[in-house]
Amino acid sequence: MVFYIIGLGLGDEKDISVKGLEIVKKCDEVYLEHYTSILGVQKEKLEELYGRQIIMADREMCEEGIDTILENLSKTPEKNVAFLVVGDPFCATTHSDVQLRAIQLGIKVEIVHNASIINAIGCTGMQVYRFGETISIPFFTEKWRPYSFYEKIKKNREMGLHTLCLLDIKVKERTDENILKGKKIYEPPRFMSCKTAVEQLLEAEEKIAGKAFSKETKCVGVARVGFSDQLIRSGQMSDFLNIEMGPPLHSFVICADELHPIEEDMYKFYNQNSQKKDE
Amino acid sequence: MVFYIIGLGLGDEKDISVKGLEIVKKCDEVYLEHYTSILGVQKEKLEELYGRQIIMADREMCEEGIDTILENLSKTPEKNVAFLVVGDPFCATTHSDVQLRAIQLGIKVEIVHNASIINAIGCTGMQVYRFGETISIPFFTEKWRPYSFYEKIKKNREMGLHTLCLLDIKVKERTDENILKGKKIYEPPRFMSCKTAVEQLLEAEEKIAGKAFSKETKCVGVARVGFSDQLIRSGQMSDFLNIEMGPPLHSFVICADELHPIEEDMYKFYNQNSQKKDE
Repeated sequence: MVFYIIGLGLGDEKDISVKGLEIVKKCDEVYLEHYTSILGVQKEKLEELYGRQIIMADREMCEEGIDTILENLSKTPEKNVAFLVVGDPFCATTHSDVQLRAIQLGIKVEIVHNASIINAIGCTGMQVYRFGETISIPFFTEKWRPYSFYEKIKKNREMGLHTLCLLDIKVKERTDENILKGKKIYEPPRFMSCKTAVEQLLEAEEKIAGKAFSKETKCVGVARVGFSDQLIRSGQMSDFLNIEMGPPLHSFVICADELHPIEEDMYKFYNQNSQKKDE
Repeated sequence: MVFYIIGLGLGDEKDISVKGLEIVKKCDEVYLEHYTSILGVQKEKLEELYGRQIIMADREMCEEGIDTILENLSKTPEKNVAFLVVGDPFCATTHSDVQLRAIQLGIKVEIVHNASIINAIGCTGMQVYRFGETISIPFFTEKWRPYSFYEKIKKNREMGLHTLCLLDIKVKERTDENILKGKKIYEPPRFMSCKTAVEQLLEAEEKIAGKAFSKETKCVGVARVGFSDQLIRSGQMSDFLNIEMGPPLHSFVICADELHPIEEDMYKFYNQNSQKKDE
């Protein structure tokens, strides 16, 4: 019995590795974790390529249901299970936790790595070695407007580092009202755009006024990295209030003040493209 | 005409994505960049899977010869070229540069992402979002012992972040004597081990005495990430003077002082394994 955690990469069904595909094809059960990120294709496309039925694993299943899956597996020596993850297996804390739980049950765990936004963000031209701590920007609500990302950006920029901002994803969320009423009614999925991220970033800078960054700070926005219609645009932070990046997922880079020569060239390249498409 | 830059991932010939493999099979020329990293298999294995002959591209070819390759391509509209890179296409500055040069010649460039050490290092259990600037540790020589990595580690640790240390690779290097004599005689390849890295790290701490870290600082060493014989061991920094990690490539993580609960569990897990194998 082996529990395989397999990264699917960032784009479509064909971003799985040859090794990953061979493994999926021989597994008895195939789960797809789909609440920390999304792929650019429907699960039917994956099922067609894999020749396997896919069980969609939402947050509940990954956090609570996983124990049952693993316990069953530990009692079935001839069975192999694949747990598919968008990006790389270790792009979410949950997956290290799943790995540990499996090992504790005496199950052999094998990992198949793939691209994730953490390294694919190099497509912006900003060097992956020059990124500081990664931050997450959550959707602000009327009452909850946490600026905890602000100090991290400030420290990164003081150290001359870029900041990768992961933008909020809300999948299978319930309203406070429905939670109180115990109703399992889910809101439609929401994905934060670069525009919303910049609105919230500028609000944080206005409130805290710690000069972590400004409207003029160089930034790069990316949408659908690894998809066939991937979009990369660079500009000053406030430019992104008017740049339309299209469908999700978006991610955002706040650059260090000083760019290396090749970074500068790449920044200009994606800036020219921004200009062209805006005209 | 398209110039494809394709990441091969970290392990063997089967870590290429299904998409990448389909592209390589239809390309007229296939180059493999092989001086910034190494794969766990010989090029013959790749050629067998791809059904294509592979041209090995060393540093000279990537930095000087690439212009000729691109110029030829720009004059041949019906031709497609694949440029294969161990890891992800953007794990080395050189590849952004190659991309720009191609675009400037009017060549369409397509990127196929894959895993690289930057995100696969999550296999240590240390969260990829909590890493600061990545550092490189070069082989010290008698006269050249640069400690420039030291301040970066210090800053990362002051911010409560982990540090990924990339360890030196010397491929196709010439001695000063042979360079002076103009002789193209190359030294055998050298790959820095975790042990050597720790010797140099502790030397830097002893000389600078800035308390960036100590012999007791928690660390994780990895060898051959993504290979079938991958090894992960954790321990205090000085433990790695005695831990045998085996063949290359090695990478090294200097942990933040405070570990999150799952990080702590993973640290203990790889530490127990270290103990067992040492006994």
